[in-house]
Amino acid sequence: AIIVYRLPWTWKCSKLLMKCIHAGLNTIAMILAIVSMVAAFDFHNASNIPNMYSLHSWIGLTAVIFYCLQLFSGFAVFLLPFAPVRLRAALKPIHVYSGLTIFATVIATALMGITEKLIFGLENPSYSASPPEATLVNSLGLLLVVFGSLILWMASRPHWKRPPEENAKILRPIGAAPEGTEVESTMTNSSNADKSDLRSNTEEARKQNIKFDEAGQRSTM
Amino acid sequence: AIIVYRLPWTWKCSKLLMKCIHAGLNTIAMILAIVSMVAAFDFHNASNIPNMYSLHSWIGLTAVIFYCLQLFSGFAVFLLPFAPVRLRAALKPIHVYSGLTIFATVIATALMGITEKLIFGLENPSYSASPPEATLVNSLGLLLVVFGSLILWMASRPHWKRPPEENAKILRPIGAAPEGTEVESTMTNSSNADKSDLRSNTEEARKQNIKFDEAGQRSTM
Repeated sequence: AIIVYRLPWTWKCSKLLMKCIHAGLNTIAMILAIVSMVAAFDFHNASNIPNMYSLHSWIGLTAVIFYCLQLFSGFAVFLLPFAPVRLRAALKPIHVYSGLTIFATVIATALMGITEKLIFGLENPSYSASPPEATLVNSLGLLLVVFGSLILWMASRPHWKRPPEENAKILRPIGAAPEGTEVESTMTNSSNADKSDLRSNTEEARKQNIKFDEAGQRSTM
Repeated sequence: AIIVYRLPWTWKCSKLLMKCIHAGLNTIAMILAIVSMVAAFDFHNASNIPNMYSLHSWIGLTAVIFYCLQLFSGFAVFLLPFAPVRLRAALKPIHVYSGLTIFATVIATALMGITEKLIFGLENPSYSASPPEATLVNSLGLLLVVFGSLILWMASRPHWKRPPEENAKILRPIGAAPEGTEVESTMTNSSNADKSDLRSNTEEARKQNIKFDEAGQRSTM
């Protein structure tokens, strides 16, 4: 869900479609997270294990609560057509930051869960004797860190961002800024600082266009 | 060490001094990390506990190795005066990304270590009975996540970056680009894309200058 906006084949989709894919994948993930949490509580209750005693459970529950808040606020602000463009522009960096932070926190929670499971689950031989299961699951944990690093790399590269070429096109006849199209494109009614951001955005779009033209990939877009 | 470049009171220091503080703090942290790793191995050997069996140890050792690589490569490229400016410009985003990723990984490792210690250390009452120690240490773990999130927030805000005003000043008489001053200031001999980055940099510097003038804080810089 995080890297939907970073895949070149989605750049030809409309922004609304991309938002819907992003929100849809995150909704599926939220449902799965809630199902797995209910399963954990059920398992604890059935085996007479206390609930919510471990750091894994504390951080995990916090992450799921923030994830739900993130999803609902994202739906209300970025998908429903009611939020003013300035609010969207102000909340977008917070939305991106908290999304990535929740993602990193969820990976940390998973690593703590793996650690707990290996300690409690492996009895004879125990975890400290490094049986093959322990080595396998440790490797999976390491791969989880590699996976998280790759996603954060893809999400944080500025040149992997969707090129705002449509905005550049819209902006050419300046003065008649269309409403509710793009967050970046309607920043003209903001402060001086925003205007300068906008200028560098269009600059970047032009740069991007040049790059596409040079590579001869324009026809495939 | 991460947020040295994000503290307004350091913006009046020279870039070299800031780099030295950044490198110095990281060197102290690396020495402490190695000392604590040796202590962990000694403790294991003294108590007849096997070494390097847990996911905590695997990920922790990986993080420390990458941390050392990061420190040595950063020292060689950014602090010693031999690396060409283009290499510095190319490696800077990788350096920033890997620094932040190592930081997040270290926090995840600490959380796993806390989980292990609570499981193995609390005997009567056990961790699952939620004694006061468990609640206290869980809270510290949550605070560690909050701390990590705050540092990542500070490090990732573009307007918390040191304003490149010196570069803008240097750049005004264009054509006579001074050598070895700043990565951003000598990008003029790079490709077209870099030139456009440069333009937005100076634009940002001007914007920042305007902000300072407006706030009347120019005299304190």
